[in-house]
Amino acid sequence: MMKNLTPMSEDFNQWYTDIIQEAELADYSPVKGTMVIRPYGYAIWENIQKFLDNKFKETGHKNAYFPLFIPKSFIQKEAEHVEGFSPELATVTHAGGKELEEPLIVRPTSETIINHMFSKWISSHRDLPMLINQWANVVRWEMRTRLFLRTSEFLWQEGHTAHATSEEANEEAIKMLNIYEEFVQDIAAVSVRKGSKSEIEKFAGAEKTYSIEAMMLDKKALQAGTSHELGQNFSKAFDIEFSDKNNQLQHPFQTSWGVSTRLIGMIIMAHGDDKGLKLPPKLAPIQIVIVPIVPNEDDKELVMSKVKEINQLLGEHRVEIDDRDEVTPGFKFNEWELKGVPIRIEIGPRDIENNKVIISRRDIENSKNDILIDNLSKEIDKLLIDIQENMFHKSKEHMNNNTTHVDSKEELIETLKNKEGFVTCYWYENKNDEIEIKELTSGTIRCYPLENVDQKKSINNKEKDGAFTIFSKAY
Amino acid sequence: MMKNLTPMSEDFNQWYTDIIQEAELADYSPVKGTMVIRPYGYAIWENIQKFLDNKFKETGHKNAYFPLFIPKSFIQKEAEHVEGFSPELATVTHAGGKELEEPLIVRPTSETIINHMFSKWISSHRDLPMLINQWANVVRWEMRTRLFLRTSEFLWQEGHTAHATSEEANEEAIKMLNIYEEFVQDIAAVSVRKGSKSEIEKFAGAEKTYSIEAMMLDKKALQAGTSHELGQNFSKAFDIEFSDKNNQLQHPFQTSWGVSTRLIGMIIMAHGDDKGLKLPPKLAPIQIVIVPIVPNEDDKELVMSKVKEINQLLGEHRVEIDDRDEVTPGFKFNEWELKGVPIRIEIGPRDIENNKVIISRRDIENSKNDILIDNLSKEIDKLLIDIQENMFHKSKEHMNNNTTHVDSKEELIETLKNKEGFVTCYWYENKNDEIEIKELTSGTIRCYPLENVDQKKSINNKEKDGAFTIFSKAY
Repeated sequence: MMKNLTPMSEDFNQWYTDIIQEAELADYSPVKGTMVIRPYGYAIWENIQKFLDNKFKETGHKNAYFPLFIPKSFIQKEAEHVEGFSPELATVTHAGGKELEEPLIVRPTSETIINHMFSKWISSHRDLPMLINQWANVVRWEMRTRLFLRTSEFLWQEGHTAHATSEEANEEAIKMLNIYEEFVQDIAAVSVRKGSKSEIEKFAGAEKTYSIEAMMLDKKALQAGTSHELGQNFSKAFDIEFSDKNNQLQHPFQTSWGVSTRLIGMIIMAHGDDKGLKLPPKLAPIQIVIVPIVPNEDDKELVMSKVKEINQLLGEHRVEIDDRDEVTPGFKFNEWELKGVPIRIEIGPRDIENNKVIISRRDIENSKNDILIDNLSKEIDKLLIDIQENMFHKSKEHMNNNTTHVDSKEELIETLKNKEGFVTCYWYENKNDEIEIKELTSGTIRCYPLENVDQKKSINNKEKDGAFTIFSKAY
Repeated sequence: MMKNLTPMSEDFNQWYTDIIQEAELADYSPVKGTMVIRPYGYAIWENIQKFLDNKFKETGHKNAYFPLFIPKSFIQKEAEHVEGFSPELATVTHAGGKELEEPLIVRPTSETIINHMFSKWISSHRDLPMLINQWANVVRWEMRTRLFLRTSEFLWQEGHTAHATSEEANEEAIKMLNIYEEFVQDIAAVSVRKGSKSEIEKFAGAEKTYSIEAMMLDKKALQAGTSHELGQNFSKAFDIEFSDKNNQLQHPFQTSWGVSTRLIGMIIMAHGDDKGLKLPPKLAPIQIVIVPIVPNEDDKELVMSKVKEINQLLGEHRVEIDDRDEVTPGFKFNEWELKGVPIRIEIGPRDIENNKVIISRRDIENSKNDILIDNLSKEIDKLLIDIQENMFHKSKEHMNNNTTHVDSKEELIETLKNKEGFVTCYWYENKNDEIEIKELTSGTIRCYPLENVDQKKSINNKEKDGAFTIFSKAY
């Protein structure tokens, strides 16, 4: 353990990869480009799912499951969609011992198959809004793997909805973006900017794409979730029609939205340090680890009975007791720090005499405090809230401290070239200019933030005002 | 609604298909052999998952996720395994715009890829037992589709474990079989026989397969869950080794076990009637539906405020209020009966005057009872328990009433030919005899029940005693 953890300052990418392996979050699989999500990583995903699934249901969405395989002809029905996804598709050509008449695509996303079904299920305005979500695996072929961030197969949820009006679809897309924002900020404790995408960066087939953008500890951006207004693009391509209240046939307006196991990558890169992961309490599979300190075998019974007592006190939290005999307390401390557990409780015979325990919090370097056992339950409650808030606060500070505003195109290019972080400016939407910036700096437009609605003189067109815009290098 | 429901007595298979469509449990997808699980069907699956996932975790298992794609060479490593699955495999030959060097198999089950990973993760006896579960989609190519029972893609969970000794592996396989039995009997309210499979019927690659076998309303058997002792077959094929307490290298003993969305098919066929589904309360997405009766528009406010009051009273249960204006109460009654909701509450102005509601239970034909609102909460609690028990009791009676014991091979053949149901006998395990019975009657050995350990003179070998055995035609 720990022996292989490259310091973050030395090589951020290697640090990221090392943590995933050493903390047993995921592993490489024998199929190039794919990953195995190990139990500790999967437990984080389950906590992500729990929060989001509740929110989706509270807002009237229902889960369903659509087939993994999509006829090739379906993918081709929406012109931009096929163009966007073609290079990444995996194709089944043989099944049941025979060559298939029409090759099947392994879903890269499910707009096409779901909208085909919507065309069967929707006929009246009474069927609207149709609010569907799916938890599933999807495949987008990748040659350069990066665990959790870029793999040929990943897990995600994809929401797909149909509405009678464009306004309702817009409202839905924003509502779901806000749920993603709430999750990432309040549960994952990562600060984000929320906005709309440029034409170049939007989803293949969407009218408009919204995203939340987080800043990693290496100051690169990570797109943490997206929500799309699809307009009538898919409802026209798939002949979805409903009769409105005046008995007129209409195509519904649609949305789709998704987050994936990429969020686990975000959590690692937004919070860790040279000792390993730091997990926010609301998301941590283990919130508190109790390490019994047993200097002599004689003390064991005493210590372990106290440990059990404390475990009972903390019953509502996710607690792990590390009572392994074959490793030292120091080894355990390192291991649980590596795994990012928010609170460690040590307890030995002398602590028991004084009716106290020693508490260390993972979010603050070298923290150690005595706490009376009588106050423990209340103190732990407070501490978990405090750690959660502190982690978010740090993330927000990091984002603010590494955001630079520029007033000219030259300055934009120079800043993106020489400095990591977000660069803001007033930008007049223009594909060629955007491509130029990307080629020169590898920076891209992350979003036009929703909360900045003012227009000012743009840096790329003397005659036009521009929208407040965030550029950054990104994962 | 309802117009398309074929009576069960007329055509059981068509009744089954009609219910699935009309109750909106699932739908056919445009890819032959695959299905769409619609929200109402998926909600049942979520309740199945909730119970089982808790049980798996309580018994020390951890969820993880392994890749969808398996190298073809992996499938070929275990001889029986490849033979069993070859005809059903779907193969990806192209991805990312190129032909792949080695074709990839879409997982029909994950023994091979999981055991490859186990060989990396297991090295010491301290790593054992390794107890992993995965919730996933799998693909086994089918030409003849039957929704939930036989589709090219289905959802399931697959447990995979490794143990230091054969005894521990056996204990594990039985423990998980017992959890399946508990689920099917106590939650799905379906009576089962629990036993081990014959050589012919066991899982491809297993030493021993256990199953639970339920009886459908058409008296055919349905295998509801299986648990396998894999011995060292896979640990040898995939070079999994651990150093034991004496520092000797050993191959672990393994198990795997699974249930799938097939369980939804079982629930339909074990409980329904000509009006539609009957769902056991513990599994029903909606346990209680409240239908307001509003003869005059003037009464609406009064009735709806009482409905809300009642809804609050029943807060801990899964309640749906059907306040649609565009359909009649009679239409609603039919629809919720079709959807198998265990309890219906009607309430109108006259009921409110008398401080009562009308209650109908789905499990009993034409049941209608007045209940005082003051007693409602307590009565509903009792009723839900009673319905659950009554449904299980009926299922058990059905199984017992349709089980025939025979004392000769001729009688076995005649009974299987002429009568649906389970046929029991004492049988001496013999492949050729078993194949003969199957060819003559299409009946197969469902299991050697675990609770019948006595051996008696067998019906197929004059010189040998046989084990108590259940034959039946099966899904």
